[in-house]
Amino acid sequence: MATRVAVVGAGSWGTTVASLAARNVPAVLWARRAELAREITSTHENASYLKGFALHPGLAATSSLQEAVSGADVLVMGVPSHGFRSVLEELAPFVAAGVPVVSLAKGVEQGTNRRMTEVVADVLPGHPAGVLTGPNLAKEVLAGQPTASVIAMPDGGHAEELMGVFHSSTFRVYINPDVVGCEVAGALKNVVAIAVGMADGMGFGDNTKAALITRGLMELSRLGVALGGRPLTFAGLAGMGDLVATCSSPQSRNRTVGFRLGQGQTLEEIVADLKMVAEGVKSSQACVELGRLHGVEMPIVEQVAAVVHDGVTAAAALDNLLARATGFELAGIPH
Amino acid sequence: MATRVAVVGAGSWGTTVASLAARNVPAVLWARRAELAREITSTHENASYLKGFALHPGLAATSSLQEAVSGADVLVMGVPSHGFRSVLEELAPFVAAGVPVVSLAKGVEQGTNRRMTEVVADVLPGHPAGVLTGPNLAKEVLAGQPTASVIAMPDGGHAEELMGVFHSSTFRVYINPDVVGCEVAGALKNVVAIAVGMADGMGFGDNTKAALITRGLMELSRLGVALGGRPLTFAGLAGMGDLVATCSSPQSRNRTVGFRLGQGQTLEEIVADLKMVAEGVKSSQACVELGRLHGVEMPIVEQVAAVVHDGVTAAAALDNLLARATGFELAGIPH
Repeated sequence: MATRVAVVGAGSWGTTVASLAARNVPAVLWARRAELAREITSTHENASYLKGFALHPGLAATSSLQEAVSGADVLVMGVPSHGFRSVLEELAPFVAAGVPVVSLAKGVEQGTNRRMTEVVADVLPGHPAGVLTGPNLAKEVLAGQPTASVIAMPDGGHAEELMGVFHSSTFRVYINPDVVGCEVAGALKNVVAIAVGMADGMGFGDNTKAALITRGLMELSRLGVALGGRPLTFAGLAGMGDLVATCSSPQSRNRTVGFRLGQGQTLEEIVADLKMVAEGVKSSQACVELGRLHGVEMPIVEQVAAVVHDGVTAAAALDNLLARATGFELAGIPH
Repeated sequence: MATRVAVVGAGSWGTTVASLAARNVPAVLWARRAELAREITSTHENASYLKGFALHPGLAATSSLQEAVSGADVLVMGVPSHGFRSVLEELAPFVAAGVPVVSLAKGVEQGTNRRMTEVVADVLPGHPAGVLTGPNLAKEVLAGQPTASVIAMPDGGHAEELMGVFHSSTFRVYINPDVVGCEVAGALKNVVAIAVGMADGMGFGDNTKAALITRGLMELSRLGVALGGRPLTFAGLAGMGDLVATCSSPQSRNRTVGFRLGQGQTLEEIVADLKMVAEGVKSSQACVELGRLHGVEMPIVEQVAAVVHDGVTAAAALDNLLARATGFELAGIPH
């Protein structure tokens, strides 16, 4: 059993996962800002991200990476994809050999299109690297609402032990050995969420939404298979589960960006208004590139990328999709 | 190519499918009530079920089964599961040998738990039997909203030809050769929709909803595999697609029944108030029985059945689910 878990990154999800782990094992949370670390340790609250939610009283935080990581036998990375590599490089000197690394980040590395577990392999070779992922809105988890999640570790990556680190009766952790599939699903599902938002913004109903979710996931499944994942993973918590939660939530940034694109706003107008770029906007290009590299047809993803990157209107993107022929539903997916 | 399609049953979905077919081939719709048949033929509207929606002007209706079915080379059954066998027996004398039969009904036969294609095999042996299914709300289809559907026929069942009968740029028909999987998914997804409604009624959010949809579909997948279906079918339009549409739609009867159960009403109160029994209420018991017969564990389905048939409260059903251990996410599903 793990004796000490370090969670690196005190955003809303990193903080939540650290609090979950603290119920089962000693856990320490790293926050870049010393002030935030002190606040979490003393008040058991992260008011910046999770105001009003009590964290586990046993959870300690620190702003020293060395203090957080030294002596940990599980390393959880709660840093977003754009800062993932640099933080990992910063903490590498302090992490013990062979300690498993669990990524919480959803997204691929800009420029390289590498998955976070591949970044771990670059920076910390010899460490088994996997993900904890699923339909897990942080505030609902902390409120104790029944939630299911999935831990994916490679062979010898201590999946069952890690399940025990995070699991509780309401935060229900399942094991899936398919690291690639779980990671691809989590990293790329936001592209489909944008497509669903677009359809909503154009005034379409449940048929169109369901078609985009289902056909969009099929595209991700095909890509996942080409990358070495298993198709059924995409029907699981990391794929369908996460996508359904994202598409249901009116707070989802990706859905919101899609909705406004569907209403005819440009990406520039939306970014200026929302003051942020949704994850799916960035990953749509990566997804298209990965598809081309591996010879996978991804019509919905390509149309999303065309709208957000090439200024194609949502209406024209829809026409492009409707002009396509259909065929075998599960074409290109081994079954 | 088909030269004449008979659609039997002029409810909202049968009427819609007949109108879709009429765009591509000669089609005739059978309505039990002569008055309704005359109305459809003369006004091109089915005001009882689809008021305000224009049907294809070429669509003719009749209340004579003999007139509808004689000379048809495709038979589409738009009759609900409880009347399916008797109507099929009534029309059997008029249908030409070997004509493929496409079922639109969702549900299994009460008492026997037989699927509609099995009922076809009983009554019309030698006719290839399949289904047209998916996330297809009739009014959205008639409004021309982009929709995807799936036709599943056995070998030699003319799937490609039938795709051409129904397909258009906005009603996009895919082929899946897995008749059993498509049929089981369509027939039983309403049980999961009730579970999702219950969670909503208890005040839970998107995590719980996504977990129930995903884990519920896994149960149906396991059953489908035991019955001879393919697991990925359940991740497709007939399974996930249809379930997502059902769970998104506030008009869904099954979701509504679940919602009220989640709020603490009894099934008797709900039935008295809504004056109808939702499909999932009936099929939950069939689903449990099929699971037991084939040795498939179906915890969510069993709890739904316990609530609707045994008076267990939604809160107790949830506790029963949360008391269970987790394990491998894809356990029991070949992948």
